[in-house]
Amino acid sequence: MSEQPGGSEFALIQRCFSSGYPQNAATLLGVGDDASVICPPAGQHLVQSLDTQVADVHFPANAPAQLIAQRTLRCAVSDLAAMGATPQGFLLGLTLPDNQTDWLDDFAHGLRDAATEFGISLLGGDTTRGPALVISILVQGWVATAPTPTGLTRSGARVGDDVWVSGYIGAAALSLPTVLANPETTDGLAAAYYYPTPRLSLGQSLLGIATAALDISDGLLQDAHHIATASAVSLALTGEQIPTAVGCGHPDWPNCLTGGDDYELLFTASPAQQASIQALAQRLALPLSRIGQCQPSAPGQPPAVTVSLDGLPLQLKTSGYQHF
Amino acid sequence: MSEQPGGSEFALIQRCFSSGYPQNAATLLGVGDDASVICPPAGQHLVQSLDTQVADVHFPANAPAQLIAQRTLRCAVSDLAAMGATPQGFLLGLTLPDNQTDWLDDFAHGLRDAATEFGISLLGGDTTRGPALVISILVQGWVATAPTPTGLTRSGARVGDDVWVSGYIGAAALSLPTVLANPETTDGLAAAYYYPTPRLSLGQSLLGIATAALDISDGLLQDAHHIATASAVSLALTGEQIPTAVGCGHPDWPNCLTGGDDYELLFTASPAQQASIQALAQRLALPLSRIGQCQPSAPGQPPAVTVSLDGLPLQLKTSGYQHF
Repeated sequence: MSEQPGGSEFALIQRCFSSGYPQNAATLLGVGDDASVICPPAGQHLVQSLDTQVADVHFPANAPAQLIAQRTLRCAVSDLAAMGATPQGFLLGLTLPDNQTDWLDDFAHGLRDAATEFGISLLGGDTTRGPALVISILVQGWVATAPTPTGLTRSGARVGDDVWVSGYIGAAALSLPTVLANPETTDGLAAAYYYPTPRLSLGQSLLGIATAALDISDGLLQDAHHIATASAVSLALTGEQIPTAVGCGHPDWPNCLTGGDDYELLFTASPAQQASIQALAQRLALPLSRIGQCQPSAPGQPPAVTVSLDGLPLQLKTSGYQHF
Repeated sequence: MSEQPGGSEFALIQRCFSSGYPQNAATLLGVGDDASVICPPAGQHLVQSLDTQVADVHFPANAPAQLIAQRTLRCAVSDLAAMGATPQGFLLGLTLPDNQTDWLDDFAHGLRDAATEFGISLLGGDTTRGPALVISILVQGWVATAPTPTGLTRSGARVGDDVWVSGYIGAAALSLPTVLANPETTDGLAAAYYYPTPRLSLGQSLLGIATAALDISDGLLQDAHHIATASAVSLALTGEQIPTAVGCGHPDWPNCLTGGDDYELLFTASPAQQASIQALAQRLALPLSRIGQCQPSAPGQPPAVTVSLDGLPLQLKTSGYQHF
């Protein structure tokens, strides 16, 4: 039992992961030694997130390798967007069922494309054999030490703050039947599934404006609950104001609120910031919708997330996909 | 398909991973947000390594969870030792077959113990369900920007340098039959398997002394080959001088040279450093053995690793365990 590949497979892995990725001025030592070494830029804090995705849990095992790579890296980078960080690099832990040469080449192709889009270095990683395809990605980036030394956290929402969301909610959840039936398609809604857009410019622009933020990966309502709990406020959302992939009379509308995988940003901000946020929406050409307000929690009750429709409280059966 | 746990399992994960780990002054934001945030200390470079270990590939799936955690974190930290880095923190990607409450509690117990020994913070991570137990650990630490800005790499060995190894080689490989037959035992050789010692003090002391270094995770000979290739020199080792768990007349002796999992440091240094290295061995109470020399490669041949015994070249069947 051992750690590292050898022989011809070592050469394959080296070919797939040693070149063609963006170079980064901060990277002093990349793939190929016991560890990577980077030089932290002055006046910046390091922001890091580790994501694990498992075949047939997080994506269809028979999806094209290139699309799996795209989606996995984009989902990971989204956590940096949610913090307002500027991405720098990533490390990859890859567990593969077999020695699939073509699969690995295709995976590396998608990974290089996505890394190039975000300008991030592949710093290192570990490729192992195992009974299932499991992908762990550590992404990291920088946030200026002032004025927001920890970037955008989940815990800063205050009573009276507005609740905002970027883009449209639900396309990825509604694409799931299509993706599962035909994992090779990237048409229509499936593009939202395989190519989620980390809202990096938005996150960076919200530093100093938003009081709390996260990216929606488990469904709007469940993720709203994370802000509520971390900030100790309740969130009252107005159903008609939520920008969904289908209208609120449509039978799929509830799935848009509870389905995961959108990777839009949910954030809170003082009402005094409304003009700044609307200007930001214009500048980024990205819809930013005010969907509710932070309120005190009911006496003796934990923070809650409620949705009203036609002024009446809405009962939704689930508040997000819980796979573990 | 989604990213994050929810409900009661969320509470379980929170209990296991949110407290009881060392706190670190560099950590501004730890477990529980979209990402962690750390403040890089001035005059230091960041050293990072990601290790993935898979049940029944890297360790017996039925080994006690506490021992699996110990071994996995210790192996990961060993990569920092090989760079001469001072550990700071880690992130954990954990894929579990079932919702095994007891398993996760025991795993967290072992993880906390090992993290406490090394004084490293748990910065974040991701726990997912999957068909097999897969553990990915990102460890990181610091190395001073001068005099060795990238720490101890594999590529600095020069013709004429001595080749050194710490401790004794082969105990972990020889323990494998015992560990596989009885995964619960930690007696005798099995301790070498479950509790490898990252040679952190040695690595840090070798900054400015060693020209190249790595930790032995795939067998002495295969890992020596990594230094040879990266440094473009050949390594000529003297069998009698290699400090092995059994003597060189023993039938298991070749396994000591080719088996993995020792996590001792293999390093090279100018002969002018012999006195410093011997003094270091005294100070650390750790045997450091000079086992060979760096030589020019044969004309037209790639860098090679050779072992002599009784002055004659030795033929060994394998040069390391290749699991991928």
